[in-house]
Amino acid sequence: MSQTTARSPNEPSTRGVGSRAPPRHPRPPLSRLGLSPGKRTRLKHLLYDHGPGGGTLLVLPIDQGLEHGPADFFANPDSLDPRYQYELAQEGKFSAIALHIGLAEKYFHEFAGDVPLILKLNGKTTIPSDAQAFSPLTGTVEDAVRLGADAVGYTIYVGSPAQDRDFLQFLEVRRAAERFGMPVVVWAYPRGEAVAKKGGKESLYAVDYAARVALELGADIVKLNYPAASEKDAESPAPYNALRLSPNDAFRKVVESAGRALVLVSGGEKVGDPELLNKVRSSMDAGATGIIFGRNLWQRTSADALRLTRELHAIFREYAQAPA
Amino acid sequence: MSQTTARSPNEPSTRGVGSRAPPRHPRPPLSRLGLSPGKRTRLKHLLYDHGPGGGTLLVLPIDQGLEHGPADFFANPDSLDPRYQYELAQEGKFSAIALHIGLAEKYFHEFAGDVPLILKLNGKTTIPSDAQAFSPLTGTVEDAVRLGADAVGYTIYVGSPAQDRDFLQFLEVRRAAERFGMPVVVWAYPRGEAVAKKGGKESLYAVDYAARVALELGADIVKLNYPAASEKDAESPAPYNALRLSPNDAFRKVVESAGRALVLVSGGEKVGDPELLNKVRSSMDAGATGIIFGRNLWQRTSADALRLTRELHAIFREYAQAPA
Amino acid sequence: MSQTTARSPNEPSTRGVGSRAPPRHPRPPLSRLGLSPGKRTRLKHLLYDHGPGGGTLLVLPIDQGLEHGPADFFANPDSLDPRYQYELAQEGKFSAIALHIGLAEKYFHEFAGDVPLILKLNGKTTIPSDAQAFSPLTGTVEDAVRLGADAVGYTIYVGSPAQDRDFLQFLEVRRAAERFGMPVVVWAYPRGEAVAKKGGKESLYAVDYAARVALELGADIVKLNYPAASEKDAESPAPYNALRLSPNDAFRKVVESAGRALVLVSGGEKVGDPELLNKVRSSMDAGATGIIFGRNLWQRTSADALRLTRELHAIFREYAQAPA
Amino acid sequence: MSQTTARSPNEPSTRGVGSRAPPRHPRPPLSRLGLSPGKRTRLKHLLYDHGPGGGTLLVLPIDQGLEHGPADFFANPDSLDPRYQYELAQEGKFSAIALHIGLAEKYFHEFAGDVPLILKLNGKTTIPSDAQAFSPLTGTVEDAVRLGADAVGYTIYVGSPAQDRDFLQFLEVRRAAERFGMPVVVWAYPRGEAVAKKGGKESLYAVDYAARVALELGADIVKLNYPAASEKDAESPAPYNALRLSPNDAFRKVVESAGRALVLVSGGEKVGDPELLNKVRSSMDAGATGIIFGRNLWQRTSADALRLTRELHAIFREYAQAPA
Amino acid sequence: MSQTTARSPNEPSTRGVGSRAPPRHPRPPLSRLGLSPGKRTRLKHLLYDHGPGGGTLLVLPIDQGLEHGPADFFANPDSLDPRYQYELAQEGKFSAIALHIGLAEKYFHEFAGDVPLILKLNGKTTIPSDAQAFSPLTGTVEDAVRLGADAVGYTIYVGSPAQDRDFLQFLEVRRAAERFGMPVVVWAYPRGEAVAKKGGKESLYAVDYAARVALELGADIVKLNYPAASEKDAESPAPYNALRLSPNDAFRKVVESAGRALVLVSGGEKVGDPELLNKVRSSMDAGATGIIFGRNLWQRTSADALRLTRELHAIFREYAQAPA
Repeated sequence: MSQTTARSPNEPSTRGVGSRAPPRHPRPPLSRLGLSPGKRTRLKHLLYDHGPGGGTLLVLPIDQGLEHGPADFFANPDSLDPRYQYELAQEGKFSAIALHIGLAEKYFHEFAGDVPLILKLNGKTTIPSDAQAFSPLTGTVEDAVRLGADAVGYTIYVGSPAQDRDFLQFLEVRRAAERFGMPVVVWAYPRGEAVAKKGGKESLYAVDYAARVALELGADIVKLNYPAASEKDAESPAPYNALRLSPNDAFRKVVESAGRALVLVSGGEKVGDPELLNKVRSSMDAGATGIIFGRNLWQRTSADALRLTRELHAIFREYAQAPA
Repeated sequence: MSQTTARSPNEPSTRGVGSRAPPRHPRPPLSRLGLSPGKRTRLKHLLYDHGPGGGTLLVLPIDQGLEHGPADFFANPDSLDPRYQYELAQEGKFSAIALHIGLAEKYFHEFAGDVPLILKLNGKTTIPSDAQAFSPLTGTVEDAVRLGADAVGYTIYVGSPAQDRDFLQFLEVRRAAERFGMPVVVWAYPRGEAVAKKGGKESLYAVDYAARVALELGADIVKLNYPAASEKDAESPAPYNALRLSPNDAFRKVVESAGRALVLVSGGEKVGDPELLNKVRSSMDAGATGIIFGRNLWQRTSADALRLTRELHAIFREYAQAPA
Repeated sequence: MSQTTARSPNEPSTRGVGSRAPPRHPRPPLSRLGLSPGKRTRLKHLLYDHGPGGGTLLVLPIDQGLEHGPADFFANPDSLDPRYQYELAQEGKFSAIALHIGLAEKYFHEFAGDVPLILKLNGKTTIPSDAQAFSPLTGTVEDAVRLGADAVGYTIYVGSPAQDRDFLQFLEVRRAAERFGMPVVVWAYPRGEAVAKKGGKESLYAVDYAARVALELGADIVKLNYPAASEKDAESPAPYNALRLSPNDAFRKVVESAGRALVLVSGGEKVGDPELLNKVRSSMDAGATGIIFGRNLWQRTSADALRLTRELHAIFREYAQAPA
Repeated sequence: MSQTTARSPNEPSTRGVGSRAPPRHPRPPLSRLGLSPGKRTRLKHLLYDHGPGGGTLLVLPIDQGLEHGPADFFANPDSLDPRYQYELAQEGKFSAIALHIGLAEKYFHEFAGDVPLILKLNGKTTIPSDAQAFSPLTGTVEDAVRLGADAVGYTIYVGSPAQDRDFLQFLEVRRAAERFGMPVVVWAYPRGEAVAKKGGKESLYAVDYAARVALELGADIVKLNYPAASEKDAESPAPYNALRLSPNDAFRKVVESAGRALVLVSGGEKVGDPELLNKVRSSMDAGATGIIFGRNLWQRTSADALRLTRELHAIFREYAQAPA
Repeated sequence: MSQTTARSPNEPSTRGVGSRAPPRHPRPPLSRLGLSPGKRTRLKHLLYDHGPGGGTLLVLPIDQGLEHGPADFFANPDSLDPRYQYELAQEGKFSAIALHIGLAEKYFHEFAGDVPLILKLNGKTTIPSDAQAFSPLTGTVEDAVRLGADAVGYTIYVGSPAQDRDFLQFLEVRRAAERFGMPVVVWAYPRGEAVAKKGGKESLYAVDYAARVALELGADIVKLNYPAASEKDAESPAPYNALRLSPNDAFRKVVESAGRALVLVSGGEKVGDPELLNKVRSSMDAGATGIIFGRNLWQRTSADALRLTRELHAIFREYAQAPA
């Protein structure tokens, strides 16, 4: 496994934009995932029948109003109205929109059938201390079924002192999802004091562990952040404290750790277009199934966001795989 | 979104009392809210068949005996007997009276059919410390159904360290309400140490976040306080620490953040008539659906309270909308 | 409401023993209480068919063995055997005996049909610290139904830091009682550090608040202690810190705060006969429905207790009301 | 009640070994206990059809492997194998063997029908701190029914800071036992910091309180330790701090406090034969129904244990009562 | 029981490799274990129909990705892909593979029918503090039934301050396993501050206690570590602080304490072949039923691991017992 040897951190991509060389790390095909008929039906809906298709996922999340508060909408005042994101998802032909029960019950009915829904089932505000990070349930798998959703989303704070409660809460979500054939997307976020002491929440150690936890606990899809190398990596447990991986290799590593859980790359804070598109291509090369970009899209004007979305579709077409 | 730019904080209203200019911010019509038949039936009952009608809400709360203790009744000793509030709601043709199970079971039967009931489902006393603010359940949605209520009320302390438990408790209320087609009114109150450190519970930051939380968690109606600008706003997270909004613009901002959750304005402590009526008109201009005034009404003598109520009806008639 | 003005603290009763002047504060008639048929049947059983009748209640509690330990029985060694209290309740024609499940299951069968039963559903020992006062369940409403009880009893520690759990536990009791038509008697006791800082558990502030909490949460009957004025009242919140009420006026105030929850006066520690009978008469004048005296009765010899009981019956006959 | 007056602490027994004078304190007959048919059937099985009979109980406990660890078995290595205790119970004709689910499921089937089973339902290890003493469930009443047990056992730590949880857990056990007609044996152990400060867990104050708690909460049988007078009794609450009772009178006192809960005397650590037999006789004189001796029996060789058991049978025959 | 006397700590084995002398401590036969038909069927499947057979168990665990993180896979990068372990279990003819729900749902279907499954039902990460060690559920017995597993695994942290919760969680697992006839394998791990103070988690005191706890709580199979003598044993409670047992005698002791719970020996960190094979032989001599070796096998290359596995099979054949 070559990732464990040191490389130049800025290794250039070997493929130009538009080249059709096969991705170096293929995505796991649906037929290998041991899916129940219900999960397979809904995943095929997301991966092939909507959005860019070809086995990819382009997801628009709008849970920031709960997670960060309305502050995130000031950059683009239109985005305060949830219809903005729904319309962007509809016009931009996203694979799905991901949001909480309130935004689903009050707005989704106008887009039902056009925009697939991932119902986010837990969340919290940023107001109280994050020391015991835990996201309580805001919705249920039954809500998702009733609303016609194609998947549910759940945030696990890997490493939090509240990890016990989190695992137990997730267990009930996973079981209900199994009962109803509902795919489960796990937002796998390292968090908490112990994480901070072992290299931080963006360290390869933490993200790599989080990817594996999601796989072990039964995620069908896992949302991961790009690991970010820093001086604090020296505090990570061995062998992570000695690794020197390029960002792309580090991400490829975590995709491998996620195994047969399909990987969505997180967008994070808004960045420039070239950086963003580069990240998408690298992620797909690494074996990711798709991206989940929020602020990077809906903090733009509608026209700008749709232009960027078309570029994303173009990239995704390069990575299309037939269903199997 | 012009609210995000600084304005003169005392911007005068552009409409005089009694003028019939259309409200600047229309209220969301029932037909757009994705309501189940049960919720729509009961909301129509409250918004059109009782009270001022025309899609407005005039709610009389009497939960202060639990929340503040009997101290609130000294200003008007008659108000200690819950019949005082029931009779005021009946004679003043309120849209609903909002109270806890004990006052519902022992008194409502004499007013059933005349005064719609919003059964408040959780509450607490002021005696123990508020540091971990949390309101435990005092009643259930099933109680509300049995008693013929048209909605249930629930207090969420947004930002409290006990927010986890609160969200989970609310989840069960929301689900039961969904099952029975019962509208949910959320008292969205910022509270707790972290709120105090970020500008306080009356800051625009806190109230705006609370409004969005109510929307995201699935409130049908949200009760909000007017944000109050203060020096502590400088401690709010960006961009709130730099905003300079007039009270009316600040309130208009939080109504927008509440999205398709209908907004009730809280009365708070008793104030003078002109100030009160001004607040009502501004609120309705901002897109509020109605008001929930307790001490401002039942701390007055019966005659005085009814006189004021008639003035409120007159204002509400200006804001009537046909059902849609 | 004259109670809020200062009076002489030792205002003498205006009626002599045996005078038949009507009580100044009538008790709420059953027909106004919004009772289900089951609750009404059982309450009529207690208020009219047993004990002194005429709408009054004379209750003998024997939960001190759990609440205080066997120490309370040393004053009258015969009282250690629960048959002593059962026989006293039977021979003294009490409205009911109130006790925990163990004493009900092992002894009640010998008195079934003669002595109505109030099954006390929660309790605790005095051994561990009272700082987080909370009484866990020891029995259930279903137990009460199975045993043929006519009511259940529940202790709420108003103001305790454990108030959250208490309210939630009470909710389940109240709901089960509703389901089975079983009246609920609430022992409403102010307790906890915050109460101590606001005037103490015997302050008018605390007792008055406790009375209202019981009403708001759905008590059918509330057991209250007489407020006791003290220097610590100055620490009570306004306006209580400035009130100067006679003991009788203070009690009349809390009876009003209890609204349509019928009031039982607590006996407390054993006192002399004149003081006791005076307290009973004052309580009934104030609108109480009856008394719940334990140690004041069963710490006496059988002959003495029965003599006193006859005097209590005589007083209660003065306050008889026809059912309505 | 003469116990409350001081006596000589070493008052000699007035009856010699083998004398047939009637016990001074008769045991409560089954017919007075208000038992359901199921409980009465099973108790009669234990009290009359097995063991010494005549309404007595000779119980062999083997829960020390969980409560103390394997250390207790070093004194007699054969005792490490649970068959040792089963065979002792079988050959010694014990009324029952008391143990946890693991020892029941894996060994009881070979002795089923010969040795009645008391399934112990909760327990803990000695490893973590005892400060918040609480024994979680290890089995259920349903397990007991399935295995053909004649009773269940439950440890309550009276006075522990975890008393709340304990009472609630016991409530569920008692209710299930009621539902299935299964007698409940309560191990009533004073425990915790507050107990230590009030005279200690062996003080008369603590044991007396524990006996009453077991009665009030619904125990059918209660296992009690002999109170042990010590200097720390001065720290017990009044009147216990001033009592000077002989060991026998102290035990007689706690048997009275247990009321209609049948009393089993605990053996405690291994002691000499004369002391042990004396304790048994005194206990039965005091109204105990039987004994529960573990280490005092199975820490002996098989021959020695059986010889002692025959002596116990002989004593118990003196105390035989006909069923009633 | 000779173990309780001191011996030379390095007592050599009296049998050479390949000798067919009977094991000194026979394993408990299935027919004596009081098993339900379902448990017996599944255990026979594991003990006789798969793996080395003859009543032995060779189990491959792959829960380290959750328990330790992906760090454990760096020694053999191929092992990061769970197929590596599945294929090793299949080609090496293991009795079972033990893993969590995510690895079962996504990979087991390709090996179903070939490799028996032990579904591990609880787990945690190493990230947060271990002070209150507790493994929350990650799967359920129903999951195991649905997937066709032949047993479930559960980790109990004996001695942890969270022992209460652990016992209660295990109770529910055991009950569900009883209901479905599913054998329960307990990972019995001493853990926590109190364990550390009493000789540590590898002390004979701690491991011996853990073995007995597993038996008492109802384990069908218990996974134990070899006790490791150290200076800290002096801090163990008597008589452990004075014991001087050879490693083999110490292990024989804990196998006896486990009684009729079948014993699996843990491999622990990777060690050399001679040491490993010696440990296996000693364990089987001591009465163990088999081994559960993870890192010692899958941290090797496939060829090396299979070669070692064949040696293990050869040893196990020496210890074959006919079913009874």
